[in-house]
Amino acid sequence: MIGRLNHVAIAVPDLAAATAQYAGTLGASVRPPQDEPDHGVTVVFIDLPNTKIELLYPLGENSPIQGFLDKNPSGGIHHICYEVDDILAARDRLQAAGARVLGSGEPKIGAHGKPVLFLHPKDFNGCLIELEQA
Amino acid sequence: MIGRLNHVAIAVPDLAAATAQYAGTLGASVRPPQDEPDHGVTVVFIDLPNTKIELLYPLGENSPIQGFLDKNPSGGIHHICYEVDDILAARDRLQAAGARVLGSGEPKIGAHGKPVLFLHPKDFNGCLIELEQA
Repeated sequence: MIGRLNHVAIAVPDLAAATAQYAGTLGASVRPPQDEPDHGVTVVFIDLPNTKIELLYPLGENSPIQGFLDKNPSGGIHHICYEVDDILAARDRLQAAGARVLGSGEPKIGAHGKPVLFLHPKDFNGCLIELEQA
Repeated sequence: MIGRLNHVAIAVPDLAAATAQYAGTLGASVRPPQDEPDHGVTVVFIDLPNTKIELLYPLGENSPIQGFLDKNPSGGIHHICYEVDDILAARDRLQAAGARVLGSGEPKIGAHGKPVLFLHPKDFNGCLIELEQA
């Protein structure tokens, strides 16, 4: 069912410093920052040859990653995203297996303009998993 | 400098259950478990179309991931691995930029039989980064 690893998302406490580190020290291909007010984050995409890294920084007052940064002041890996062909079929299969989908269970439109869902970390080895319809 | 994302490593508290979940519920291509006594882990590789997931489970008394599981009993994302062409050149560049390399600074032979180094999470947004010479 799961396909490509679409991205690894890293929450960072200083977006400019993290961007400069990936572009400079690590020599990666880094895109300009992009505000995603609907998701409460500013995102910097880093293009690797086979997948992407997303640097996440809080935007606005109720950012979903502020709590994570409060607990992890140095930052950390926030989630990983697997692609699926059919997000509703994936959701139904996961729920039938007893896994919890976060929120209402209805897909939202994610930062890439595609339907996404998040799965409960406690049901997946402590990892927050995003599913994105490819 | 950094190339492909070689893998995402997830430490898991129950290797059989995690393997069954990836093979069954998530429908991924899962290889048989592989003991790595030199690294104190049993590893299950999950082949995604563009990269790999490594499930890590402690092996032996001094496993380097036991402490992580003690702090994160549900498991969690342990590290990410970027490929580099020349690990010694990568190390020198990182150290010149003030980043800390873990251990002696000399590459070890990793679970894939290739030279690897780990970078200090505090210098990389709270992420433990493995570099592997591709």
